[in-house]
Amino acid sequence: MQNFVFENRTKILFGRGMERQVGEEARRFATKILLHHSGGHVVRSGLLDKVKDSLKAAGVQWVELGGVQPNPRLSLVYEGIRLCRNEKVGLILAVGGGSVIDSAKAIAAGVPYAGDVWDFYDGKGSPAEALPVATVLTIPAAGSEASPSSVITDERGPWKRGLTAECLRPVFSILNPELTFSLPPYQTACGIVDMLAHIMERYFTREDHVELTDRLCEATMKTIVRNAPVVIHDPTNYHARAEIMWAGTIAHNDLLGTGRIGDWATHMIEHEISALYDIAHGAGLAIVFPAWMEYNLLVDVRRFARFAEEVFGVDGLFYDPEQTARQGILRLKEFYRSIGLAPSLREADIPTDKIPEMARRAVIMGPIGAYRRLDASDVEAILRLAAR
Amino acid sequence: MQNFVFENRTKILFGRGMERQVGEEARRFATKILLHHSGGHVVRSGLLDKVKDSLKAAGVQWVELGGVQPNPRLSLVYEGIRLCRNEKVGLILAVGGGSVIDSAKAIAAGVPYAGDVWDFYDGKGSPAEALPVATVLTIPAAGSEASPSSVITDERGPWKRGLTAECLRPVFSILNPELTFSLPPYQTACGIVDMLAHIMERYFTREDHVELTDRLCEATMKTIVRNAPVVIHDPTNYHARAEIMWAGTIAHNDLLGTGRIGDWATHMIEHEISALYDIAHGAGLAIVFPAWMEYNLLVDVRRFARFAEEVFGVDGLFYDPEQTARQGILRLKEFYRSIGLAPSLREADIPTDKIPEMARRAVIMGPIGAYRRLDASDVEAILRLAAR
Repeated sequence: MQNFVFENRTKILFGRGMERQVGEEARRFATKILLHHSGGHVVRSGLLDKVKDSLKAAGVQWVELGGVQPNPRLSLVYEGIRLCRNEKVGLILAVGGGSVIDSAKAIAAGVPYAGDVWDFYDGKGSPAEALPVATVLTIPAAGSEASPSSVITDERGPWKRGLTAECLRPVFSILNPELTFSLPPYQTACGIVDMLAHIMERYFTREDHVELTDRLCEATMKTIVRNAPVVIHDPTNYHARAEIMWAGTIAHNDLLGTGRIGDWATHMIEHEISALYDIAHGAGLAIVFPAWMEYNLLVDVRRFARFAEEVFGVDGLFYDPEQTARQGILRLKEFYRSIGLAPSLREADIPTDKIPEMARRAVIMGPIGAYRRLDASDVEAILRLAAR
Repeated sequence: MQNFVFENRTKILFGRGMERQVGEEARRFATKILLHHSGGHVVRSGLLDKVKDSLKAAGVQWVELGGVQPNPRLSLVYEGIRLCRNEKVGLILAVGGGSVIDSAKAIAAGVPYAGDVWDFYDGKGSPAEALPVATVLTIPAAGSEASPSSVITDERGPWKRGLTAECLRPVFSILNPELTFSLPPYQTACGIVDMLAHIMERYFTREDHVELTDRLCEATMKTIVRNAPVVIHDPTNYHARAEIMWAGTIAHNDLLGTGRIGDWATHMIEHEISALYDIAHGAGLAIVFPAWMEYNLLVDVRRFARFAEEVFGVDGLFYDPEQTARQGILRLKEFYRSIGLAPSLREADIPTDKIPEMARRAVIMGPIGAYRRLDASDVEAILRLAAR
């Protein structure tokens, strides 16, 4: 086990009707807030009105900024920063999924900063302070509701860059599983792949003697795998939606990474696929992860065999761990198919001619991954495995 | 799953040598602190000197108050409050185990309060604010290093009372497993029983559909059960000490209770045994918990059977869950014996003549427990089961 620091201040309010408490919670931080959202479903569903009613009842004023898009844009972040400064806002409330929350975090970092907030995303320093951010979550997937991370796209590039800073962790997040009943199956499935990947990126480590976190990872992965088919086929099942929603937060709140180093190469390879072919992040992860596992299987086959046994119940004969591990990958791909996602470039109808270009771009800042450092030829080999 | 609020602000610094960071961390909160401890081992081992060196290097001044005893006393708390006020202390640093931390929390609640701090323990109100508390943990057991709870004894009664308030949760806790190498086997075992009990009190619930927390509980219990014999027989095994230490924090930081109501009857029954016979809290829990399980087995045998299967690997034949559940209790008792503790009053050489008195005292404030409400006759029946 490696030395670690673990800290997570986010207050979680979880359950039916919890969004009615947003006004009371917000008032602990500010009397005037920025209400940030994407428009569309949160408006049509009546959620935004409920939030406003709660704010009104608590005597909290707001200014509104909608229009957040998937892959949230820097231009809207700039607009949010101006708005917060002019209106002397004390808290940013994101109502939506990961994109809205990430956009809110960028605005929060930018408001007290004299320079260009893109500096932080461009690696030129880290924010020492930020406005407090809070969330009402509508899409369990990215884990941004309790994470210190934000990913923003500067559309002038386009450059997609991430930022992690403890001051960006939301001060509170409201999670009502009922708000996810109306998520379409495809979006639900992409979220499930994303949260599972957040755990797998941490689970596949070369560190031994991380028993408790291994077991906590396995517990969370098993919960996701068991409840995924339920929420796909019975979308208003509260119990299953609740398990998935809470698992999505636990997957990425840093608890499951304690004592070990995450890998994250799969996420970086995926970014190149979605950048070129505009597919959802979760759909891309379903393509890359099984191939990454296959390529790295023999680095430490014990861990991949354990994954197969614990998460998918493969019968792990001790004298042939490689076969156990390979069956785990097959089961993972079957799992992705069962929730409607394609676990290969071929099944996703994505051409293979740009594999060398994607491989080159994935390592443009240097080798990626921690479980095993990958250069362009490794990434190309992984994408060739993903093609089949 | 029930609605819940989960919040835990405690920053954990975990690993070898982490106590050297205490000065830097403390300085974020105050330039003058109270250094609170029990004397004895923390002095002889050199830990206190290391802490002082770190404080000195960071420019943090301290006043010192040692002498905390097991079942920490109200009189010392009063002394600490006076000292903090006179010296204008801004943080209380507890160096030790649960007793020292609980004493520090009581002082922290008392300093800004105009009345008698015992009011809070006596149920006359809850503290709205407290001085920040931080810890350097030396005994993994009570979980106080990341909990909002404190138990204090007013020796004039004696009355032993608990207090829970979010403002008492430590702002940071330093956990170095090496500091537990010198814990004697008996104390190590008592700590293990205590942390396991913290999970079991939450695990045994009538709430269905708490799948993720069930699995997280099982993951943590399995880790404790697997590493317990290692730390008993190989006390300087860093890996095993680390698993036990981190598990002790996770067991009681409230994550494992999300979505469900804890029972806590076993803890209340145990308090009566240790009050009369002056045995360690963990030793008492080892006596009461198997009996509590046996008494409640048929309320919902499925959960007790699941416990047997998941935590102790009992082969769970679906047509006879009762037998599976009973074997789980036998295995739990065997586990306690294997780490040197007696799982019955008889084996612990405790007489049975005061069982009616203990039963009466345990429910003096009304029925106890949530899994099943217990009155005096129930508690007496449990203690009779514990006698065998």
